[in-house]
Amino acid sequence: QGEVRDCQELTDVERAIETVINQFHCYAVKGQKEYLTPNEMQELVVQKLPHLGKVRCVGPLEEKIECMGDPDEAKLEFGEYWDMMGDAAKGCRRK
Amino acid sequence: QGEVRDCQELTDVERAIETVINQFHCYAVKGQKEYLTPNEMQELVVQKLPHLGKVRCVGPLEEKIECMGDPDEAKLEFGEYWDMMGDAAKGCRRK
Repeated sequence: QGEVRDCQELTDVERAIETVINQFHCYAVKGQKEYLTPNEMQELVVQKLPHLGKVRCVGPLEEKIECMGDPDEAKLEFGEYWDMMGDAAKGCRRK
Repeated sequence: QGEVRDCQELTDVERAIETVINQFHCYAVKGQKEYLTPNEMQELVVQKLPHLGKVRCVGPLEEKIECMGDPDEAKLEFGEYWDMMGDAAKGCRRK
């Protein structure tokens, strides 16, 4: 019974936030859930945001990833990841 | 056929981002989807983030809402809303 989490009671928004958080954890392999490398972030964007890409809001996102530094060594922390997802969201809203 | 959107093809992350965007639009009544008033944001947090609240990550969120200014007149734009949701998410991650 200790494992019981009231996930089923989460609201749609809470589940949505959880989904975005989980992606970070899934892809942050090298940084052990603490940070994403630019390569990992790039992989996440390609695999998980293919449609945001199509509507051309991910353009600036990819530029930002390139500016982050060494693709395998630079560190993107959770807050920066969230900001980047926000940029993608803002791009979509503008559409 | 003009209405066809490939929603069913959206990835889980894209749907999640869409959900978070939609909340902003739903609650931004006074600002006609352009901004939330502090009262509207407060309503959103209470109704849509009840569990994030329980785990005590929404504390700072409510403080921030109070600091925004006149509850019915101050304007919270989409970027600020997204940042606040990020603060809630960070709080949860820390747990």
